[in-house]
Amino acid sequence: MSPRDARTDVRRLPEKQVRDLATLHAILDEAMHAAVGFEVDRQPFVLPMACARDGDHLLLHGSTGSRLMRALAAGAPVCVSVTHLDGLVYARSAFESSMRYRSATVLGTATEVAADEKLHALEVLTEHLLPGRWAELRAPRAKELAATSVLRVPLDEWSVKVGDGFPDDPDEDLDEPVWAGVVPMRVAYDDPVDAPDLRPGRPVPPHVSSRRPTAASGPHLPGSR
Amino acid sequence: MSPRDARTDVRRLPEKQVRDLATLHAILDEAMHAAVGFEVDRQPFVLPMACARDGDHLLLHGSTGSRLMRALAAGAPVCVSVTHLDGLVYARSAFESSMRYRSATVLGTATEVAADEKLHALEVLTEHLLPGRWAELRAPRAKELAATSVLRVPLDEWSVKVGDGFPDDPDEDLDEPVWAGVVPMRVAYDDPVDAPDLRPGRPVPPHVSSRRPTAASGPHLPGSR
Repeated sequence: MSPRDARTDVRRLPEKQVRDLATLHAILDEAMHAAVGFEVDRQPFVLPMACARDGDHLLLHGSTGSRLMRALAAGAPVCVSVTHLDGLVYARSAFESSMRYRSATVLGTATEVAADEKLHALEVLTEHLLPGRWAELRAPRAKELAATSVLRVPLDEWSVKVGDGFPDDPDEDLDEPVWAGVVPMRVAYDDPVDAPDLRPGRPVPPHVSSRRPTAASGPHLPGSR
Repeated sequence: MSPRDARTDVRRLPEKQVRDLATLHAILDEAMHAAVGFEVDRQPFVLPMACARDGDHLLLHGSTGSRLMRALAAGAPVCVSVTHLDGLVYARSAFESSMRYRSATVLGTATEVAADEKLHALEVLTEHLLPGRWAELRAPRAKELAATSVLRVPLDEWSVKVGDGFPDDPDEDLDEPVWAGVVPMRVAYDDPVDAPDLRPGRPVPPHVSSRRPTAASGPHLPGSR
């Protein structure tokens, strides 16, 4: 459970705050990218980065070639934000209209994964983003490892907000002559597309052809993908 | 076209930078939320906020009740980041594996929309997120407008990155005994769900039942939603 302090307490709609570690993990484990915020010369920057949870840390993947990545890896305070949109909430007024979402915010300091832990970190990232892929790929080359930077942020100070309900209209609006409800949203995968330079005899592996979202954002209806 | 300066020039994979204003607009117009980065007492924060483009500005929606929103509305330098994930790129190595994405970054200063422009801003936000809804809803009440804060950020300093290709493996990897290609991803909508307290005689309107993603993130296959 995250410490209850001024920085991570949710003040707006506090009833939507969730303090359960399993919920934090589930939100992070469904994310493929995170918005990583940090500051350089008083200017805030937000970079989208590939992410994967490794136990009680979040791994973030970028390139050593990036000026912003270097600023990050130097031990900058960061805020990592992950948001899943799960639906559109049609209330009886614009004011009450909203979205279903699950969002996680992690505050901390990013540090670079050490050279001797980089291979493990890349395996965790690859298996998170492309489950089943690591075992069939050749081992990374030394120059590839050298050109890759992985950051880690401990999951110590965090907050989670979840909006998963229906419209919460006041009684005086319930007779408004409009429909009210929710349109669920989710991530869908379409059929795999071969690379144009794919060599013959290399079929789509089952871990790709059976690919589905890592978790349901909405109901998975029969016949939907 | 964004000015070419040190803050918004893409240094990592510069060939992926796009300087076309129409592409910026398309990325923002497909986004329902943005990650808004700013700083309070040297700590970076990133808030997910509902967003909508209004001409050459981006509107961001929050609540006057939020301490962070107040810091933002006070004229803080911000970085607004929007990212769409369009697919998973299975290369022949972990190093070349990547994602298809479109991301936009806007640097600037957030200012609060003035009281006499708030109604317009709410219409733009509502119609962006729930197209067709504004005309059928009652007018916002004065107390609702007072409790709503909308920020705007000019689209002056920005950068766009697009990764839309196939694996870019070096020649020496093309004979690796693995499949290579792309798994397209997109946002899908499921069937609308009535609010539990929905009054009779209020059917799902066509603008809801026909709801589809605002733009295709991947191919829309026959029979898929």
